[in-house]
Amino acid sequence: MFLNKLLRDGDNEDLAEERRKATFDTDEMAAIIWEGKEVRFVRRRREITKKVIEYTELHDPFCQAFMTRHEEVENAARKVNSVEILKSFCNNYLIFSKTHTQCFSEVIGMYGHPLALHAVMFIPSLQAQCADDQMHWLKKAMSRQIIGTYAQTELGHGTNLRKLETTATYDVKTQEFVLHSPTRTAMKWWPGNLGKSANHAVVVACLIIDGKNYGPHNFIVPLRDPATHMPLKGITVGDIGPKMATGPVDNGFLSFDHYRIPRTNMLMKHAKVTPEGKYVPPAHAKVGYSAMVHVRSHMISDQAKFLAQALTTAIRYSAIRRQGEIQPGDGEVKILEYQTQQYRLLPQLARAYAFSFTGRAVRDLYLRVQKDVAKGKVDEMAELHYITSGLKAVVTHLTGEGISQARMSCGGHGYSKASNMPDLYGIAVAGCTYEGENMVMLQQLARYLMRAAKEAEKGRALGRLVNYLVEPSDIHSTHLKAFDKAAKLQVMKAFERMRSLRAQGLSDEDAWNANAVELNRAARVHTRQYIAHQFYEQVSSVADGRCREVLRDLLHLHLNYELLDMAYYLLEDGFLSGQQVDYMKEDMYRLLAKLRPNAVSLVDSWDISDHELRSVLGRRDGHVYENLYKWAQESELNRTQVLPTFEKYLKPMMMEARAQSKL
Amino acid sequence: MFLNKLLRDGDNEDLAEERRKATFDTDEMAAIIWEGKEVRFVRRRREITKKVIEYTELHDPFCQAFMTRHEEVENAARKVNSVEILKSFCNNYLIFSKTHTQCFSEVIGMYGHPLALHAVMFIPSLQAQCADDQMHWLKKAMSRQIIGTYAQTELGHGTNLRKLETTATYDVKTQEFVLHSPTRTAMKWWPGNLGKSANHAVVVACLIIDGKNYGPHNFIVPLRDPATHMPLKGITVGDIGPKMATGPVDNGFLSFDHYRIPRTNMLMKHAKVTPEGKYVPPAHAKVGYSAMVHVRSHMISDQAKFLAQALTTAIRYSAIRRQGEIQPGDGEVKILEYQTQQYRLLPQLARAYAFSFTGRAVRDLYLRVQKDVAKGKVDEMAELHYITSGLKAVVTHLTGEGISQARMSCGGHGYSKASNMPDLYGIAVAGCTYEGENMVMLQQLARYLMRAAKEAEKGRALGRLVNYLVEPSDIHSTHLKAFDKAAKLQVMKAFERMRSLRAQGLSDEDAWNANAVELNRAARVHTRQYIAHQFYEQVSSVADGRCREVLRDLLHLHLNYELLDMAYYLLEDGFLSGQQVDYMKEDMYRLLAKLRPNAVSLVDSWDISDHELRSVLGRRDGHVYENLYKWAQESELNRTQVLPTFEKYLKPMMMEARAQSKL
Repeated sequence: MFLNKLLRDGDNEDLAEERRKATFDTDEMAAIIWEGKEVRFVRRRREITKKVIEYTELHDPFCQAFMTRHEEVENAARKVNSVEILKSFCNNYLIFSKTHTQCFSEVIGMYGHPLALHAVMFIPSLQAQCADDQMHWLKKAMSRQIIGTYAQTELGHGTNLRKLETTATYDVKTQEFVLHSPTRTAMKWWPGNLGKSANHAVVVACLIIDGKNYGPHNFIVPLRDPATHMPLKGITVGDIGPKMATGPVDNGFLSFDHYRIPRTNMLMKHAKVTPEGKYVPPAHAKVGYSAMVHVRSHMISDQAKFLAQALTTAIRYSAIRRQGEIQPGDGEVKILEYQTQQYRLLPQLARAYAFSFTGRAVRDLYLRVQKDVAKGKVDEMAELHYITSGLKAVVTHLTGEGISQARMSCGGHGYSKASNMPDLYGIAVAGCTYEGENMVMLQQLARYLMRAAKEAEKGRALGRLVNYLVEPSDIHSTHLKAFDKAAKLQVMKAFERMRSLRAQGLSDEDAWNANAVELNRAARVHTRQYIAHQFYEQVSSVADGRCREVLRDLLHLHLNYELLDMAYYLLEDGFLSGQQVDYMKEDMYRLLAKLRPNAVSLVDSWDISDHELRSVLGRRDGHVYENLYKWAQESELNRTQVLPTFEKYLKPMMMEARAQSKL
Repeated sequence: MFLNKLLRDGDNEDLAEERRKATFDTDEMAAIIWEGKEVRFVRRRREITKKVIEYTELHDPFCQAFMTRHEEVENAARKVNSVEILKSFCNNYLIFSKTHTQCFSEVIGMYGHPLALHAVMFIPSLQAQCADDQMHWLKKAMSRQIIGTYAQTELGHGTNLRKLETTATYDVKTQEFVLHSPTRTAMKWWPGNLGKSANHAVVVACLIIDGKNYGPHNFIVPLRDPATHMPLKGITVGDIGPKMATGPVDNGFLSFDHYRIPRTNMLMKHAKVTPEGKYVPPAHAKVGYSAMVHVRSHMISDQAKFLAQALTTAIRYSAIRRQGEIQPGDGEVKILEYQTQQYRLLPQLARAYAFSFTGRAVRDLYLRVQKDVAKGKVDEMAELHYITSGLKAVVTHLTGEGISQARMSCGGHGYSKASNMPDLYGIAVAGCTYEGENMVMLQQLARYLMRAAKEAEKGRALGRLVNYLVEPSDIHSTHLKAFDKAAKLQVMKAFERMRSLRAQGLSDEDAWNANAVELNRAARVHTRQYIAHQFYEQVSSVADGRCREVLRDLLHLHLNYELLDMAYYLLEDGFLSGQQVDYMKEDMYRLLAKLRPNAVSLVDSWDISDHELRSVLGRRDGHVYENLYKWAQESELNRTQVLPTFEKYLKPMMMEARAQSKL
């Protein structure tokens, strides 16, 4: 019995050979990754896969890559409807339940569907904002009597929400709000499913009473006729057109022409407007960061999975692709034998694990802090907000780079949509922009770090996460101490530079802007220090000995790789010598070679089914070439042997030339 | 009269304000970039644009982003047919003529068309390989009596050409070659236009006579019936399916089932097979690298233009997008005011210029060396081959990263296909893989560098390009000296490590592989050193004083930015101190601020017309928002107000839920 549990008879022998080399049980590792604690959970995931494969209604009639956008949208609508069949397996709209996520991931993938925003944004907004007498909206949404989305971003404003232009003016005579888009840039733009699917939206608009602007508030707004789905009078709504990826999602635009809704359509759990037009501010101060922190902590885990998917494809393919010889005459080798290929892929694999462990750590921290908040202890929530901002920026950026490397490591075939790499990249990098543009995220963390630096000067730690600015960690890892040092150096350097810019006469704001690049550096190094610590801690707590051993190697590869990438900070200060850097490099090369025999098993452990992976190159059985050919034969251009372009353009062109040649 | 020549009445005022700040004449700069020497050439480019705008047959009926793949292919076929109208403006198939390129760029863009490979690969192959009595093939190709492509890459082999599996076995009885694909992996895969457009191909197959394999040779092969376009008997041909980009190109597969062609279809300019089946080897040794060097030197310039296009969009948009305040109460600022945005874009802009100047330098070097080769002096051709390999790898990689940064700097709107950024990225990064995978390219240069290091140990320079390994350059630039030093350090370090690995008992080949990452580093640093020198030299020779001045700032930004990115090498060695690095940083921040007022004019100077740029965000007039809305209204999903998914899936779902709620 081999330790890699994905080994099957009839597989590509090159891949089977890799799997037989596993030094750890891949099901045990899968249980660690998916937090099943026991292998039982891993089996449950596979049952879902099996069910999905059984119900052909849940399949794509042909590969999405060959679909027009109309077909993509329709296919997603059909599937999301059929997914009800699997209701017995997952709680309806328990969005973050693991089995539900797994089921959606199998059926829909990461491509989106007409009810995506309904589940992820519309229902949570109503849950958070409906007053007691508004709960009928939530009921309608939960039971799918209406389809909704959340409309905040406008054509002209995404980051700076205070400048949103849509207005909701209270008309005391009719007790209605008049929604209006005063300019072109006021048009709502981007909300998912707003274009064609939703008939309702939670709309963010500036509340105006008696000419006074009370800032952004939330309103529940009917957009389309419930029977005909035609836009209601005063509403202009449509699709914003194709994007880099997520074709099945109808991101939309929306503008209002003096469109009236009843006063009671303002969501009044917090702020209120009385019938007489009196504004009642929220009883408590702004609830704050909770929702953002929640979404961003889930983004970390999602990005880890995107990266793992790309590496599953790239590493399996690298084990079946043979190209070139290392020893002349010894035959062509698997491209995974090349050090350059190992260097391209294994540190990225280590990151996938690191991000996954970090995502989990942040989520657990969130759950703990949320309990504290319930008891009135709110200070840690801010700290958590800042670190998730930094993580969101760093993890999405590095994931994009990692997928890009994984794609290129597959050579030409990685460029084909058969690899699924192009879509995977397109979907992952969207995360660099949504839920807070990365540069802005880093600046947020930097603000916290500058406050921390100020405290550190006085010998005080602002919070647990910046304790390293004040006193050395008690962890016995020279690597982690180096991360601490690098982060401290850059944080304090940015702080000093700020002071010196102000001393040169710049205002606080101008000094901040003139220091923004250094501040972002500080935020990045701090975040990478945080990830390193999380990875280290979680590996230490792994119970299974064989899994822990290989994870330790992966951890050390990660620590060496990241430190080398940041060596600059430590060399500049003299903390590291050139010799020490060389030593880390040698250690990294040693670890590449040591991890290489477990490479396939380390991606297999993510237990991503073929159905979910949607990659001909990454197939579990390794039978890539014959299936590439099968896939291509279904290409939309192969539906006829001769395209109309021949009769229309190519034939006349050639005929004329042939006739001319006979003159 | 303002110096920026793209300023027009009625433009977005934020953009006009930028243009009025130009400190140099943008037409003069355009003449430098496009090597017009005089502004007259710039005017000629604009005439082409004007003609293209006049002939509506050359336009897309609607944006390509809204097209199905069938529509994309048909549209490209129609346009390439119509481009004949512009014949008077450009020599037919003088591929690398500047006006011709410009015309194609305006009409087709970078997306490809059914005759792309015909022009770029099929005709040049025939030119290089047809014997005197085979010139009728070239004539037919030139006049377009036939449409061809070049079929080399197979499903199983791209990089390692010696292992191509397609065979051409000589049958002396019938005086024919029998083309055959013995395995699935032998199938030709990837050649552009092979799938649906070409009816002929130059096919690379292993020549077999009397059971002896003479290795890859070229054959001209009819694939489809000239009248019906149906594949000929023994031929299986089709489209390989959609890719990351280049939808209009029908990359194809092709396999042979004992398909016979006359002996005379082997291209016999060099090697020959007599009717009796005697193999006559080429009279001269292999012609070598010439074609590859030519193509790669053009790739450098193309990539520079891709990057410039992305920056044209990103920098113009950054001047019209206002978001957030720097000084509270002073109003929202252009996002170009943020240092982080400048840092994201301006060093990339410097790279676009650097790559453009380097591409030109390499092309000129190629032309000179080619003349030498004609006189029998071949030694410099090898050197040129190696440096173009390195340039191809470094420039394509950095261009991909630059476009990605440019896209993200546009926030959400950069993710929309309205920005054209997704396609631009997809097309540019293909260059990392085609014409030699980047890792393989770096390894090639590294082989040369290791030979150079061996010579350098003995105090000898292997060639002009590695002279810095032996003696210091006489250029009075401390920056360039630092580049030389960094390159020398890493080249010698990789060389030493190789020696030490061999001393540990590794074979030459295993030592090479165990050192591959360090070797690639050496190749990269050497290449960046080369680019820095080219940029420096070409800026020094600019005649126009005002252009030279701003180019000098751009050059210094480039030198600082690149050196900081490579500071690691210099800090490790102690060549640079932490203080010196800090000084370079300060200089870089100063240059960002200094260049910022010219940023728009520096992209305007690339003189890329709106028609060619195909980006709503990058429009010359800056009227972005209203045109984003116009663009979106044409989205394929907006052709009807209500999609069929409503009646089919969404309505039944909601109706059932509403009915349930009344129970």
